Amino acid sequence: MVRLQFSVQLAYDVLDDASDFVFNIQAAKTQCQTVVDEHLAISQTIDPIFFTEPVSGNRMLRLQARRGSLVIRYQATVDIRHRLSQPEQLYETPIADLPSEAFAYLYPSRYCESDRLIHMACREFGTMEPGYGRVLAIQKWVQQHVSFHSGISCGTTSATETLVERAGVCRDYAHLMIALCRALNIPARFASGIDYGADPTLGPPDFHAYVEVMLSGRWYLFDASGVTAPMGLIRIGTGRDASDTAFATIFGNVSSYAPLIEIDAFDDSQRGIVIPVHCEHALSTADCDA
Amino acid sequence: MVRLQFSVQLAYDVLDDASDFVFNIQAAKTQCQTVVDEHLAISQTIDPIFFTEPVSGNRMLRLQARRGSLVIRYQATVDIRHRLSQPEQLYETPIADLPSEAFAYLYPSRYCESDRLIHMACREFGTMEPGYGRVLAIQKWVQQHVSFHSGISCGTTSATETLVERAGVCRDYAHLMIALCRALNIPARFASGIDYGADPTLGPPDFHAYVEVMLSGRWYLFDASGVTAPMGLIRIGTGRDASDTAFATIFGNVSSYAPLIEIDAFDDSQRGIVIPVHCEHALSTADCDA
Amino acid sequence: MVRLQFSVQLAYDVLDDASDFVFNIQAAKTQCQTVVDEHLAISQTIDPIFFTEPVSGNRMLRLQARRGSLVIRYQATVDIRHRLSQPEQLYETPIADLPSEAFAYLYPSRYCESDRLIHMACREFGTMEPGYGRVLAIQKWVQQHVSFHSGISCGTTSATETLVERAGVCRDYAHLMIALCRALNIPARFASGIDYGADPTLGPPDFHAYVEVMLSGRWYLFDASGVTAPMGLIRIGTGRDASDTAFATIFGNVSSYAPLIEIDAFDDSQRGIVIPVHCEHALSTADCDA
Amino acid sequence: MVRLQFSVQLAYDVLDDASDFVFNIQAAKTQCQTVVDEHLAISQTIDPIFFTEPVSGNRMLRLQARRGSLVIRYQATVDIRHRLSQPEQLYETPIADLPSEAFAYLYPSRYCESDRLIHMACREFGTMEPGYGRVLAIQKWVQQHVSFHSGISCGTTSATETLVERAGVCRDYAHLMIALCRALNIPARFASGIDYGADPTLGPPDFHAYVEVMLSGRWYLFDASGVTAPMGLIRIGTGRDASDTAFATIFGNVSSYAPLIEIDAFDDSQRGIVIPVHCEHALSTADCDA
Repeated sequence: MVRLQFSVQLAYDVLDDASDFVFNIQAAKTQCQTVVDEHLAISQTIDPIFFTEPVSGNRMLRLQARRGSLVIRYQATVDIRHRLSQPEQLYETPIADLPSEAFAYLYPSRYCESDRLIHMACREFGTMEPGYGRVLAIQKWVQQHVSFHSGISCGTTSATETLVERAGVCRDYAHLMIALCRALNIPARFASGIDYGADPTLGPPDFHAYVEVMLSGRWYLFDASGVTAPMGLIRIGTGRDASDTAFATIFGNVSSYAPLIEIDAFDDSQRGIVIPVHCEHALSTADCDA
Repeated sequence: MVRLQFSVQLAYDVLDDASDFVFNIQAAKTQCQTVVDEHLAISQTIDPIFFTEPVSGNRMLRLQARRGSLVIRYQATVDIRHRLSQPEQLYETPIADLPSEAFAYLYPSRYCESDRLIHMACREFGTMEPGYGRVLAIQKWVQQHVSFHSGISCGTTSATETLVERAGVCRDYAHLMIALCRALNIPARFASGIDYGADPTLGPPDFHAYVEVMLSGRWYLFDASGVTAPMGLIRIGTGRDASDTAFATIFGNVSSYAPLIEIDAFDDSQRGIVIPVHCEHALSTADCDA
Repeated sequence: MVRLQFSVQLAYDVLDDASDFVFNIQAAKTQCQTVVDEHLAISQTIDPIFFTEPVSGNRMLRLQARRGSLVIRYQATVDIRHRLSQPEQLYETPIADLPSEAFAYLYPSRYCESDRLIHMACREFGTMEPGYGRVLAIQKWVQQHVSFHSGISCGTTSATETLVERAGVCRDYAHLMIALCRALNIPARFASGIDYGADPTLGPPDFHAYVEVMLSGRWYLFDASGVTAPMGLIRIGTGRDASDTAFATIFGNVSSYAPLIEIDAFDDSQRGIVIPVHCEHALSTADCDA
Repeated sequence: MVRLQFSVQLAYDVLDDASDFVFNIQAAKTQCQTVVDEHLAISQTIDPIFFTEPVSGNRMLRLQARRGSLVIRYQATVDIRHRLSQPEQLYETPIADLPSEAFAYLYPSRYCESDRLIHMACREFGTMEPGYGRVLAIQKWVQQHVSFHSGISCGTTSATETLVERAGVCRDYAHLMIALCRALNIPARFASGIDYGADPTLGPPDFHAYVEVMLSGRWYLFDASGVTAPMGLIRIGTGRDASDTAFATIFGNVSSYAPLIEIDAFDDSQRGIVIPVHCEHALSTADCDA
């Protein structure tokens, strides 16, 4: 089991009388990821609305803030009991056996234009043996063909643009990997979270974007950018792409500060709590049925 | 009340041993649209799987067909009791009052890149009085600035491309109108259906794409291309854009024939059944709560 | 007559042993624009190669710099005797009467994808009376539909992107205006230069991009962004778009500083030298024959 | 020496009173390609204007046709004495040694957005030994990664789109190869012509697009699509991309028929005339100085 503790602090200057925010910063609750404790603090006295998206299970927080400073601080401790599978036993689920909820993750989305990548995906990966190995080959391809550069891509950058420009950040790696999987009729979705153990030379801890791919009827974790051990990923939200899983969507005249994020791993082998490491297994943290 | 009868016939040659299909051709069931009778015939002896998408309520039909000819024929009679509203009383719902389900229709999607159209939408429509009138102005703008041409756009064409090329079909009009609404923080979604009363010089009856925009907390009908009276629209499916509402999604080696569609309106004024006409009211056929 | 004096200072750190540069910073020499005096200083002792592009007449400067600091300083005094025409007498040159050299400026180029704007241009401007008035209408349309913002567009931004995003800098305004003219079969080309009299709130003096359109067989000046009186434009280079007229093209590992530019106008009415002002005439500074 | 005879027949219905045409169908004249005889027939009695583009040497034909049928028929016999070079001796010309005329072919153009492919080109080809081998590797990469399909790309398709879609025709292969070369600072240009010896299963003889790359200060022939032996290429025109070298540019309301093209090779070994074959040498047909 992995036990991770993290905190997120988001700070804004609200410049209008009332601005609306939708946040998705709370740790997801799944059969594998348990929220041991959590605490949310909002600097303004507001009654937020909490709701859970019916399809994704994302935990959303809506509020309307007044003019002035707004600081949201959330911290949580989560236990993750990964479902481990032998990679060589994982197969690509036949269309006829896909759960109905998976179809949405086969179709193109804003930043994953899989409908334009069919020839490319078939040519590069079409003759490979279907299964976990092929998905891993897609992840490796993306990792090897895209350079990590901040400042080249932006919030409107999509998978086809990343395929051309070959540079971006974790979000761009994820979008391209997802689009390639979908182009091969493999369901793939976007996940936002926090990662433990990222290379500190890449910058301070930040939100991370990664990928879940359905194999053998279950969603398995892949870090498209290859910077993080999947075992160190805390799930916050999932969706078709980044448009579904922004940590903050802002309606109004607001200036934002950079998020402040901290993450730590517990190490208590006597109680079976281990530090996340790279491992040879395929990992899943999603609910059984999706 | 409007009573419409329509039939859809889809024909394929399945070239592989087994090909999977997902259809969305059955008339939607909403508080306003009642399916009086319906009949589905499948030429092969297959047990299809019927399921309803939890968010959209779209009625889906999955099946795996064998090699050979496959013909799907569906016909239905539907009664539509439109909810009529005075346009001048409809307001743009404040973000703080939006139902949570509406947020997905504020975000950009594959064919509606609203995140790239914010400047354009604000410049063209930003100073207009919010409300039904502004949404109608967007619809008129799209209708006036795009030429109806088949063969210029294709299945991968998106709203920004239509804004540049200024030519397309109903799907393209709908995508552009939706993207402009979302760029102004007005929830808008894509609807697929069949329309009664289209100009026969535009071709034989076909599937139609139109738009639903949330005003005063309810979804109102707009025909972005302006060719059809909204009163004559039968709803089949709704979604974020065409990627969610394809009438047929095909997995396999299949050749397709053009769909054959027929539609008729009943006229029985004694029983309050009228032929669809253009009217000055705003019309809604969606369920109350979404 | 207008007499303008300007200076350009370009500074670089050359990080490799040898880096190649191609500069286009010298004032153009045309029948209307005379270089009264000019001075070029290069901080490294290098023998540059001067050459004139055969089609455009652009005055190019090539050199290979050594590792270390490189500063190029150019200053010139130019006299401009504008050819003034009555706008209402200028006609769009029939294709059959176009000089052969003009055809290159009818075709799409990297940043002016006129081939994608034919429907749009015909719809917005197709029914207008051809002539100077129509070209001015295109310029006004671009000025009114695009917001001046630095930081939104970049070096790879093209006219169709500006038509979507509706924000950019002088270069983007020029590209969009050129693309719209070409889509209507009106030859249009990109000009780089320095402008006198720009609004100082838009920033310090800088290189400027403007447009030349062929009317009545001659190239007339238009400032697509509308910030400058055409009378205050000094020509440096012309081309199909910005890809032809970069002030500096760098091959090698070089870091660049922002250009330093100064410009002044002489005022000596006794000798017929006037300060540039907005005027009602159409202005040309190109050679008669092109 | 290779002696090829070809004919081109272009047929149109001119629907307006006067429509303008610019043709580029005549065989180029270079130091290596001699036009032994040629004949041009125009079905209407018109005086065409012949002109040669100063930079490219393209032989252009302008005319204004009257309403009715217009048929242009051109046939020629050309002798091509290829300049043969040992591939391993050809080097990439250092920027400092490039002739000034070559710079235009380093910059991005309408269909060759090399400015967006710098990361991709450096990542795929940046560590290879510069020279003919690297250019051949680019050609092979394009050939292997793009599928030949007509009907997927169109007249507005550019290199970045082909890189995404991975399907196209000879024009698209050429554009992508050119863009990749330029992204590595290797001058590359687009050539239009007729090819002898194409695979007849790909369709009837047609215009062909190929590539010329500057190596060791001279332009060498590459068939990006790999379908033709470079020895069988007749040059018609060269330019920055297809926008410069259309075989027909039409201004007016005209409907076009498919071009009819024939080509034959002479075989007279006694006089040293051989049938074009694949060979190991690098071939050039351009003038010495460009």
